[in-house]
Amino acid sequence: MTHDSPMKLHSLWRGAHVATMQNGQYSLIENAAIGVVGGRIVWIGEAQKLPVYDAQNEHDLGGGWITPGLIDCHTHLVFGGNRAGEFEQRLNGVSYQEIAKQGGGIASSVRATRDASEAELVASASRRLKSLMADGVTTVEIKSGYGLSLDSELKMLRVATALENDFPVTIKRTCLAAHAMPPEFDDKDAYIDYLCDTVLPKVAKLGMADAVDAFCEGIAFSTEQVARYFNTAKSLGLPVKIHAEQLSSLGGTRMAASFKALSADHIEFIEEADVQAMAESGTVAVLLPGAFFTLKETQRPPIALLRQYGVPMAIATDANPGTSPALSLRLMMNMACTLFALTPEEALAGATIHAASALGLADSHGSLDVGKVADFICWDVESPGELSYWLGGDLVKTRVYEGKQSDGKNSLGKNSLGKNSQGETA
Amino acid sequence: MTHDSPMKLHSLWRGAHVATMQNGQYSLIENAAIGVVGGRIVWIGEAQKLPVYDAQNEHDLGGGWITPGLIDCHTHLVFGGNRAGEFEQRLNGVSYQEIAKQGGGIASSVRATRDASEAELVASASRRLKSLMADGVTTVEIKSGYGLSLDSELKMLRVATALENDFPVTIKRTCLAAHAMPPEFDDKDAYIDYLCDTVLPKVAKLGMADAVDAFCEGIAFSTEQVARYFNTAKSLGLPVKIHAEQLSSLGGTRMAASFKALSADHIEFIEEADVQAMAESGTVAVLLPGAFFTLKETQRPPIALLRQYGVPMAIATDANPGTSPALSLRLMMNMACTLFALTPEEALAGATIHAASALGLADSHGSLDVGKVADFICWDVESPGELSYWLGGDLVKTRVYEGKQSDGKNSLGKNSLGKNSQGETA
Ligand SMILES: [Zn+2]
Ligand SMILES: [Zn+2]
Repeated sequence: MTHDSPMKLHSLWRGAHVATMQNGQYSLIENAAIGVVGGRIVWIGEAQKLPVYDAQNEHDLGGGWITPGLIDCHTHLVFGGNRAGEFEQRLNGVSYQEIAKQGGGIASSVRATRDASEAELVASASRRLKSLMADGVTTVEIKSGYGLSLDSELKMLRVATALENDFPVTIKRTCLAAHAMPPEFDDKDAYIDYLCDTVLPKVAKLGMADAVDAFCEGIAFSTEQVARYFNTAKSLGLPVKIHAEQLSSLGGTRMAASFKALSADHIEFIEEADVQAMAESGTVAVLLPGAFFTLKETQRPPIALLRQYGVPMAIATDANPGTSPALSLRLMMNMACTLFALTPEEALAGATIHAASALGLADSHGSLDVGKVADFICWDVESPGELSYWLGGDLVKTRVYEGKQSDGKNSLGKNSLGKNSQGETA
Repeated sequence: MTHDSPMKLHSLWRGAHVATMQNGQYSLIENAAIGVVGGRIVWIGEAQKLPVYDAQNEHDLGGGWITPGLIDCHTHLVFGGNRAGEFEQRLNGVSYQEIAKQGGGIASSVRATRDASEAELVASASRRLKSLMADGVTTVEIKSGYGLSLDSELKMLRVATALENDFPVTIKRTCLAAHAMPPEFDDKDAYIDYLCDTVLPKVAKLGMADAVDAFCEGIAFSTEQVARYFNTAKSLGLPVKIHAEQLSSLGGTRMAASFKALSADHIEFIEEADVQAMAESGTVAVLLPGAFFTLKETQRPPIALLRQYGVPMAIATDANPGTSPALSLRLMMNMACTLFALTPEEALAGATIHAASALGLADSHGSLDVGKVADFICWDVESPGELSYWLGGDLVKTRVYEGKQSDGKNSLGKNSLGKNSQGETA
């Protein structure tokens, strides 16, 4: 481009302030403009400093605040059935033991997920995905882990893939085959052998997962078992993440850090040595206040230590049928502030740039900067702190995915502007 | 109507199950039909038992569950500004004292509300009202109480009136002039005199309120002061309700029961004698879990006692800028279950029939029965318990207000099907 030629843009967005979230901070730009070419940001700054440009589309947002599109970096969004019945039974006085005896708990989700067709799983997950998207989410991680067999784990991962084709949203797929014990196995080590010998190699070969995850806990798998599974994942070139230290301290987080895990999630019970290990390995702490709230936990993650060691904190819904039936990432931001005393700025960083890091996407997503993907939300608020302040409500004014407007109940489906899909999910 | 002539209907709704909430219970009807004439239900039952009918409009809801439209019976939805800035300051370590010294807290909402024009207040409250409505609310109570002078209290009540004209929603207006001390007064008794001599008579004369409310607490008004104010309200023919026993036990609830108060709200600190008095006076207990959550309270309302004495429990958002910035009544239902251990059935009764009682509307609203207003929601759920189970999300399939469909982001405004308004609120 010569000095005189105008900057060529596919679209220009102006008329709002921006919290870019660069470096995990608001990094405000008042009266901003964002120029987009091919779904990427090519210019961002104060509107009055715009160079001469030539834009195919120009949008006046009419006020409000722009932030990066929210990133939900930990969900179990694909599952058969739901566990509202158990929720209701428990509140009517039925014990966990009795519910387990009836085949409830995670076993019931595994059964329902195995029994469901791919189309049924796409349909039910679509409803949940639309709720997340309507609340400002543009990237969602989805874990398998209710299949627990090669075929049914692959089915879940195919559903996650189909959702990305159907909606204007970026999906990252995580294989969580080491989530629980399937009914076919008695021996945990034997199940881990099966995952290492059969499931992970096939998932990797088919390119069906972006990462591998495990549940390291007394009620799930031991640190040694997860380490074995992570070794296989690493040998297959897949990054790892872990559910760890939610109910007790087993050392899973430290072990995962030795594998340079993208993230360690829950981590209510981590200790200083774990935090130090995370800082050294660049592992993100993913906080899941929806599960903390639903389970009425009392042990909070050690926020002060995480701050002290500079471990980035992400926030996610943990959307799942048992312990966190959460369909709003913004609500999780409020809960992170109210329950864990994060600042609204930390909460927003946790749902944008640090969530991107937890998915290995920080180079392309999570903040608004030249070269990054133009996923952003214009919110009907007077300050970015309002995103964590309100409990519920509809604050999205305009949703932009890969540089294209894609909001409104009717445009979040497959005929949206954001994508053109031939999927058959109705 | 002779035996042979068909039942004439304006509209017939079928294709879904119904939880009628009669008697405060689900009272399920599977595969139901609802016939409407003039905005009222004239027939409800199993679709296969429908008599011969002739309907101008027939709607197949295509599955899901119908419940009464939700009723938010305690809100402070009209206010100037918001307090997201204070929320953020506090989480950044600024003390309550420091914020108060800066003029924060309720004083800042009073200032901002007084300074705002009626049109500005309508505009800001409209956004919040739309969030409530989009989540299934068809009736909203709105309190004054950030004006604290005759003119500004009347302004708030006019805004509430304007909102009803602008949206397909029923608004009940409550004069909460005894909410806090205005800056012009030093002496609480003198302010109560002013309310009794000037404010309440004028509000009553103009017909601007459906009820009168007060905040009875050490930081607000004493039991004796509120009793004096209630005496005036009663002499003017206005029913009363009270904010009481939220932070301590002052006897406000018992005193309010002696005035046959419609409701006593918050009531974390009530004792058995209070519960007994409520049972005798027919006073509804309004639980406000959003404030409990936001304030990180630990004293729960005595649910077991309320059940034992058969005191109906309602649930509301308490939507307000300081202690409960809540814009989803369904979220409050989840919090009532999770934080107070209500059952999902109690939570739904609390957001429908008992909320109607708290507003003196139980004869016409709050359950689905012949003769009642046809306000109902068809939800995209497989059981009514799901309404309390999910945290956030968009579950509304079809919203029917006074017998007419009025849902979708764009139809919740003044050009909705539900109402035809000439209001100027944009
Ligand atoms: Zn999880
Ligand atoms: Zn209140």
